[in-house]
Amino acid sequence: MQRKFRSPRSDDSRGVASPFLDRISDFTVRRLSSYCRILRNLETNSASTVSSAKLAELCGVTSAQVRKDLSYFGNFGTRGLGYQVSELKTAIEKIMGLHRQWSVALFGAGSLGHALFFHEGFREDGFYFRHVFEVDPLKVGKKWQDVEIRPIEEAESRLKRIPVDIAVVATPSESAQEIVDLVVGLGVKAIMNFAPRKLNVPDNVGLRNVNLAVALESLSFFLSN
Amino acid sequence: MQRKFRSPRSDDSRGVASPFLDRISDFTVRRLSSYCRILRNLETNSASTVSSAKLAELCGVTSAQVRKDLSYFGNFGTRGLGYQVSELKTAIEKIMGLHRQWSVALFGAGSLGHALFFHEGFREDGFYFRHVFEVDPLKVGKKWQDVEIRPIEEAESRLKRIPVDIAVVATPSESAQEIVDLVVGLGVKAIMNFAPRKLNVPDNVGLRNVNLAVALESLSFFLSN
Repeated sequence: MQRKFRSPRSDDSRGVASPFLDRISDFTVRRLSSYCRILRNLETNSASTVSSAKLAELCGVTSAQVRKDLSYFGNFGTRGLGYQVSELKTAIEKIMGLHRQWSVALFGAGSLGHALFFHEGFREDGFYFRHVFEVDPLKVGKKWQDVEIRPIEEAESRLKRIPVDIAVVATPSESAQEIVDLVVGLGVKAIMNFAPRKLNVPDNVGLRNVNLAVALESLSFFLSN
Repeated sequence: MQRKFRSPRSDDSRGVASPFLDRISDFTVRRLSSYCRILRNLETNSASTVSSAKLAELCGVTSAQVRKDLSYFGNFGTRGLGYQVSELKTAIEKIMGLHRQWSVALFGAGSLGHALFFHEGFREDGFYFRHVFEVDPLKVGKKWQDVEIRPIEEAESRLKRIPVDIAVVATPSESAQEIVDLVVGLGVKAIMNFAPRKLNVPDNVGLRNVNLAVALESLSFFLSN
């Protein structure tokens, strides 16, 4: 599973990603997310250093895993002293691209789209919804904060005028592939998909499928064992 | 990370789970979920057998990982012939507890709660919402399919009359711990939490925190590398 990355800090390009990067990042990045969240909490609680053992314990992994994950990206920490909390947090935020803002277009203004748009954590992480597109004429024209919901037919012209980094697909499954083809054609390189359907994207486009059933399945597994 | 489970098929009790089961199942169960989904697709497409290499490729892991994951639960497959698709699918569904129905109580009838209640995949997997509880008096009394939204004050009496296996917390963060304490007190052993806050549960209660930011963070990582 584990393979070496090129250092993300040496290159800010958005070129063709290798297929294995796409595969491994899903598990590695989950842990990096987790480390980042824990380090933010530690910083809030005024902790200045943390050992790999403590960080591992808080994250529910082994300390060998923590050291291995971090070793891909540079030399962090001092033997016997552990990691500087603020320094490591800042480094991971940079690795994860959380030190900057990302523009997002939302497709689908149903209840899931609404929940995502107003989700507390996104703005804190630097993700800003610039567009909301919807087919339902009853929703078009409404405003969510400072963003007006627009008909899907306007997506192309609006995305050409105000481009985004990421498209979030929260529509019924039937329309998901069509939307993905549209945004990929407009140069969007990253897609977060909630439609429970396999979507096709070119190799140089990042696709993350969020499957809400996984957490419930994990609980039925827990209850059965 | 990887540790041996006791076979879930030999024991259907819901006794005290060991803390390490809680930790490892999160990654292992994600892969089991993924195998299960792929096997269902293969079955739909009338495939009768699949090699571990092919299953691994479709899931984006190594074939050694597939064999290792499955070895925890029994002997599946025949060398050189691979796995019987239907047989392995049925076995994994049983391991995951997806061969039976689970009763679920939903706390929070906001947009996220609505999206979860109407999510296509849950019923197919055997998860049935029996209760919806909400504080907003404007929502109380409305019906979602055959379930009437009830005030949170009625949760205790209603859950005593119609108990559930799983509680889903889709409320604002402030009320999440209170709800968790209530349902744990009523004997609920599994909780799916969307509130971005650390919740305390006893060791014998399964808690899965769903963090919607992780997929977006994974994409910002992808775009940065």
